[in-house]
Amino acid sequence: MRTTQYTPYQAEIAQGRLESLLNYQTMVCELTGMEVANASLLDEPTAAAEAMGLCFRQNRRKQFHVSDRVHPQTIAVVQTRAEGLGINVTVGPIQDLDFSQRNISGIIIQYPDTFGSINDYRNIIEDAKKNGTMVCCATDLLASLIMAPAGAMGVDIAFGNSQRLGVPLGYGGPHAAFFACRENLARSMPGRIVGVSIDASGKLAYRLALQTREQHIRRDKATSNICTAQALLANMSAMYAVYHGPQGLRDKALRAHNTTLLLAQGMIEAGHKIQNDLFFDTLTITPSQTCPQHEIKKRAEEKKINLRYFHDGIGSVGIALDETVEHSDMNDLLYIFGCPLNTDELFVSREREIFSRSLLQSAFARTSNYLQQLIFNTHHSEAQIVRYMKKLENKDISLVHSMIPLGSCTMKLNSTSEMWPCSMPEFTDIHPGAQGEYAGLRVIKKYLHFKGESHRNVCLIPMSAHGTNPASAQMAGFKVEPVNVARDGSIDLKQLAEKLDKNKHNLACLMITYPSTNGIFEQNITEVCNAIHEAGGQVYLDGANMNAQVGLCRPGDFGADVSHLNLHKTFCIPHGGGGPGMGPIGVYVPSNMMGAKGLRKSSEIAILNANYMSKRLEGYYHTLFKGFKNTVAHEFIVDVRPFKKTANIEAVDIAKRLQDYVIREEIREIENGSMDPVRNPLKMSPHTQSVVCAETWDRPYSRELGAFPAPFVCPTTKVWPTVSRIDDIYGDRHLNWISYGFDLEDKKEDRNMMHRGMFLAISVLCVGGAVV
Amino acid sequence: MRTTQYTPYQAEIAQGRLESLLNYQTMVCELTGMEVANASLLDEPTAAAEAMGLCFRQNRRKQFHVSDRVHPQTIAVVQTRAEGLGINVTVGPIQDLDFSQRNISGIIIQYPDTFGSINDYRNIIEDAKKNGTMVCCATDLLASLIMAPAGAMGVDIAFGNSQRLGVPLGYGGPHAAFFACRENLARSMPGRIVGVSIDASGKLAYRLALQTREQHIRRDKATSNICTAQALLANMSAMYAVYHGPQGLRDKALRAHNTTLLLAQGMIEAGHKIQNDLFFDTLTITPSQTCPQHEIKKRAEEKKINLRYFHDGIGSVGIALDETVEHSDMNDLLYIFGCPLNTDELFVSREREIFSRSLLQSAFARTSNYLQQLIFNTHHSEAQIVRYMKKLENKDISLVHSMIPLGSCTMKLNSTSEMWPCSMPEFTDIHPGAQGEYAGLRVIKKYLHFKGESHRNVCLIPMSAHGTNPASAQMAGFKVEPVNVARDGSIDLKQLAEKLDKNKHNLACLMITYPSTNGIFEQNITEVCNAIHEAGGQVYLDGANMNAQVGLCRPGDFGADVSHLNLHKTFCIPHGGGGPGMGPIGVYVPSNMMGAKGLRKSSEIAILNANYMSKRLEGYYHTLFKGFKNTVAHEFIVDVRPFKKTANIEAVDIAKRLQDYVIREEIREIENGSMDPVRNPLKMSPHTQSVVCAETWDRPYSRELGAFPAPFVCPTTKVWPTVSRIDDIYGDRHLNWISYGFDLEDKKEDRNMMHRGMFLAISVLCVGGAVV
Repeated sequence: MRTTQYTPYQAEIAQGRLESLLNYQTMVCELTGMEVANASLLDEPTAAAEAMGLCFRQNRRKQFHVSDRVHPQTIAVVQTRAEGLGINVTVGPIQDLDFSQRNISGIIIQYPDTFGSINDYRNIIEDAKKNGTMVCCATDLLASLIMAPAGAMGVDIAFGNSQRLGVPLGYGGPHAAFFACRENLARSMPGRIVGVSIDASGKLAYRLALQTREQHIRRDKATSNICTAQALLANMSAMYAVYHGPQGLRDKALRAHNTTLLLAQGMIEAGHKIQNDLFFDTLTITPSQTCPQHEIKKRAEEKKINLRYFHDGIGSVGIALDETVEHSDMNDLLYIFGCPLNTDELFVSREREIFSRSLLQSAFARTSNYLQQLIFNTHHSEAQIVRYMKKLENKDISLVHSMIPLGSCTMKLNSTSEMWPCSMPEFTDIHPGAQGEYAGLRVIKKYLHFKGESHRNVCLIPMSAHGTNPASAQMAGFKVEPVNVARDGSIDLKQLAEKLDKNKHNLACLMITYPSTNGIFEQNITEVCNAIHEAGGQVYLDGANMNAQVGLCRPGDFGADVSHLNLHKTFCIPHGGGGPGMGPIGVYVPSNMMGAKGLRKSSEIAILNANYMSKRLEGYYHTLFKGFKNTVAHEFIVDVRPFKKTANIEAVDIAKRLQDYVIREEIREIENGSMDPVRNPLKMSPHTQSVVCAETWDRPYSRELGAFPAPFVCPTTKVWPTVSRIDDIYGDRHLNWISYGFDLEDKKEDRNMMHRGMFLAISVLCVGGAVV
Repeated sequence: MRTTQYTPYQAEIAQGRLESLLNYQTMVCELTGMEVANASLLDEPTAAAEAMGLCFRQNRRKQFHVSDRVHPQTIAVVQTRAEGLGINVTVGPIQDLDFSQRNISGIIIQYPDTFGSINDYRNIIEDAKKNGTMVCCATDLLASLIMAPAGAMGVDIAFGNSQRLGVPLGYGGPHAAFFACRENLARSMPGRIVGVSIDASGKLAYRLALQTREQHIRRDKATSNICTAQALLANMSAMYAVYHGPQGLRDKALRAHNTTLLLAQGMIEAGHKIQNDLFFDTLTITPSQTCPQHEIKKRAEEKKINLRYFHDGIGSVGIALDETVEHSDMNDLLYIFGCPLNTDELFVSREREIFSRSLLQSAFARTSNYLQQLIFNTHHSEAQIVRYMKKLENKDISLVHSMIPLGSCTMKLNSTSEMWPCSMPEFTDIHPGAQGEYAGLRVIKKYLHFKGESHRNVCLIPMSAHGTNPASAQMAGFKVEPVNVARDGSIDLKQLAEKLDKNKHNLACLMITYPSTNGIFEQNITEVCNAIHEAGGQVYLDGANMNAQVGLCRPGDFGADVSHLNLHKTFCIPHGGGGPGMGPIGVYVPSNMMGAKGLRKSSEIAILNANYMSKRLEGYYHTLFKGFKNTVAHEFIVDVRPFKKTANIEAVDIAKRLQDYVIREEIREIENGSMDPVRNPLKMSPHTQSVVCAETWDRPYSRELGAFPAPFVCPTTKVWPTVSRIDDIYGDRHLNWISYGFDLEDKKEDRNMMHRGMFLAISVLCVGGAVV
């Protein structure tokens, strides 16, 4: 699939993506032993910071502790994020922590820890929880396949990196973080959660659960930002688990562990000391005097192997293996550490000793089963997984079917020639950078701090700004102050002046989106920037709509102080079915492919297309805001509020009927009474095959009008929604975020497949026997 | 699409592939100026031999002449094939040929010829046709974009290589040959022709036309063999034409020609003599004394450029360019030939002289337009072509939906991991070899010749042999003598003995398929081989079903003298939507991927699966033939003839209802009278969306039974046939093999798209102007 789908806002035509993300959530819950998981976060350190935020939302305590055996990058991000939230973070040993003051919000432990050790945290966890301190645990999905899961120790939150299940290493990213917690925390959990609801026919259907937490609903107080996911990578891991199943995954974990056991024996034979009593796949060793760190490093570089070199005075060295390590890699490692025996010699002569250290022989061996759902026990051959993927693919609308006019960034076409390089090693091996929006705001914060103006903490955000802005501003520790828009959609300059006056002593910045999400180029953008500067503030310009500017104008020229670009919006990295929304300031392939003229032309076309559409819809729909010379920028808002009065039709009815393809004519027919006000094709949209092909049809309009409402929506082009309109209220009242296998309709079929598979396996053994 | 479809036997679920092949035929007709084209042949030399065969079928004359300005590989294959048919081929100049004896069946000319020259053949063609001699012309699709097409000169047959339109060079193959002729020759044209017919609803639908010519209908006299196509490559060229359109293709042709004009000037500046008066993209030069052939060759090797070196006494050198030649390549060529000027200098100083040699200035410039059909003027952006491909893909059933049980070879799964390497340069750069079956028979023929037994010309072919065998035997010049099968499906040994006795003096060989297409392992295969050998014959064993033998047994052990393997059947090269059926004896990737054990296991599974299915169907369907211990081999035949009497249900009804998914229960209901004998779901299958979702439904069974007859055929898994049952008789009576654009249903939509495209192009110019 070179053409990726976008955010599943319209769940009825995104059932495929949603099912796969539900599989992901199920897999995370099963492996971590937790009760609820979200559909991924950006990366492991961000997940740690979100965990801290969740603890804070629970108990409002301002003290937070991170174990010094947590990965250093995780510690660094938690420290940065804590500043914005006014939380005081301590880093150190976890053992001697005094919880009895009941002032510690939460702690982060890591299991196995950054040095590879598997420690028993049960007493500490019990002590913490007794005193109202939340316990967050960074853990490892691969290890959890053979190691007692973090959930079994009683932690409140488990998170980590799902790269280990089927995602390329890629020099450190992008990798989806997983995030799981106890059920009672579900409603304040960060990130998107896919849940199960029912549709208008009463059939089970998937949707984004708890949407009231999302940015597009609770703008100023959102705990979830639609862009904080790695949907594509989460789907990869989910499909990896579906394909390999519990036994296949366990085999991979065992392979990684057994190889590490062998390596540990090699370290001992070479005279080194292993610092870990119990480990999964990572060792930290104290080198022998005859083969110290610098000698090990020299040999490792010769063999082109990266190791972790500690600056701890005793020259410790860290080694981490995975399931892909081969015989020759092992021999290289034994050579690097000066082991007198090679892999085969080691195994033959020391087998018993090697396995005596196994995790499986310890109290930490996993005893609970996992992934027993049918979905993880069905698609274990290529034909099966390809058919399953095809089935999901055909439930979703993507750019191979039509444009997806859900918002300006969803319309941006990623062409195959731009997707292709994403799987080239030259690109997958580049680290994607940090979160632009948050980083930009942190820069402003630091700048004000160095100017001695730390008290400045108010961030003005016009209502026409990008939906992610308030969430980012709050994360960065600003107080958000909204600014209204005028009748024409531009910033209400009068109110802006008032708010500036009111906040003149503590104004930090303005976050503005240009052109705005109202689809207009703010004519007095320079004036606005000047006013902010005069009041001592900085201007943060959200570059999400840079695709309407590239080659035409430059944010710096209007007076913006900080800006970021979105790679997936203007510069064609994969949308990935919703997220990630990351954006370092950088330049991507299209600049080479399109050249300066091409980039400029693409901006012109974007603006032209929006104005063309706005013009074409004139007389049918009213464009809410227009700017200079009665034109719009690269997007525009159609005002459908009047239809509520004239036909009781709301935006959601149009969105759903658009899945069949809406026509203005239908609204007119409802208005003039020739269509039923309740049982009409808009209110009853979308139309599924089950409904349209049913024996009975009791609607006051025809089946054909339901299914094929326009000449260009005919059997050869039709994309059928697989569920009727989904009941959001039901979904939020009956929360369910675990995959129970399949939708009911398929359950029987899939059971059959499973039985057939078993039959064949047995038969083959018989025939094999006969032939031998 | 890593998973490719197989032969479009069931046209209703192959409308996508058929539409694309129809586009290919249309493109060939338009560019060559001919009236009818087939859906490709294996390669250009084979097409030349087929052209000769067609001439022979028309006038039964045994004299055939090939111009000495035809490619040498074409001449060689024609000579080989002529032997088999007893035709006498002469090779030489075409000018002085005496047609007045009225004994020449046909001639082959080449335009532009192998040396690159464009010659006027009109007088010769007129003279030939006046005397009943057919004229075949090898020609070039790229050249035809700017050169008067072969059809305009009045040739009867035009053929060539469609590699030039979008197919990688690949060290010489595989490349689809095109083959086009006059309308009056259509019915004896070789190869498959896609035609337009109507379905049961009266709507237009595609199918293989003139199926009575196909191997599975006219077994012994087939002029078409289902495997003699390069469907995948033909589809590639068709999509290339759809994407680029007439103007885009013309630009490519002009680029190739103009670059060659520039090079020609360079040759002159360097003191060489150009042998071509008029040329398109190929030059043959007589080198100057200062820079002779060996010097040119030395420099060319230094620059890693391949040229054609003639052994003609004067050391001529041939150069052919295409549209991908770049500035640096041109400079390299100028250096190789010792030109004192580089590309830029040449162009600037000699522009007028360069273009004075242009084809466009000559009487051979193309004046007729082409590819004016909507289909070649619509999909010129990536979004458009991807959506068009997706639309076609979704009309077809392939392995991503289900197995395709049309015959044993169609069931063989090509996995993604096996398809992947097909696009690696390491594989695409290997020539695929020759046609196994034909080559094997020619080996037998030569062997008998050298033994002094040329009179042996009878080839015995059991009725249980592979359908391609009789066609190959006739091509190789054998007299085919069929041998019946006994009641149990094995060879009728009594009749074999009789036929051996009857033909003992002129028996050449037996062509046997093992295991047979009746699905049994012939128990007395060794006995049969011995009998043939005793009668002085050779045994040709068709290796099509090698997938039931690999690792289990070896044809050589039973007594086979010659055998071939089919790469696409046993060794996983792409099926490509029907053809090619090529098979050198070689070993392909799976041997490495699967190992000896894996290959053997795959044979076991193939046999096991067939026996499992046969067992499961017991009691519902009767397996016609069984072998040893009542088992079958890797396939079996279900006997449905009794249903004709009991329910008036024929094999074709089951095939069509299988597109919806047949159930035996339905036949029983017809048998016992609870279902209408005429208006039942079998007779009225397949069921389309238009039919099932229509306002009216007047059938005596429900819509749901029609569309979703089994629990596993539900809306989420359903693949909808896009047309109702196709009328074969109508199709053959109203022959139409040209794409007229789109099926009617889409015509309106696509017109709209075309207009929108034009509007945008105009608008952009305006905005561009305004901004500049």
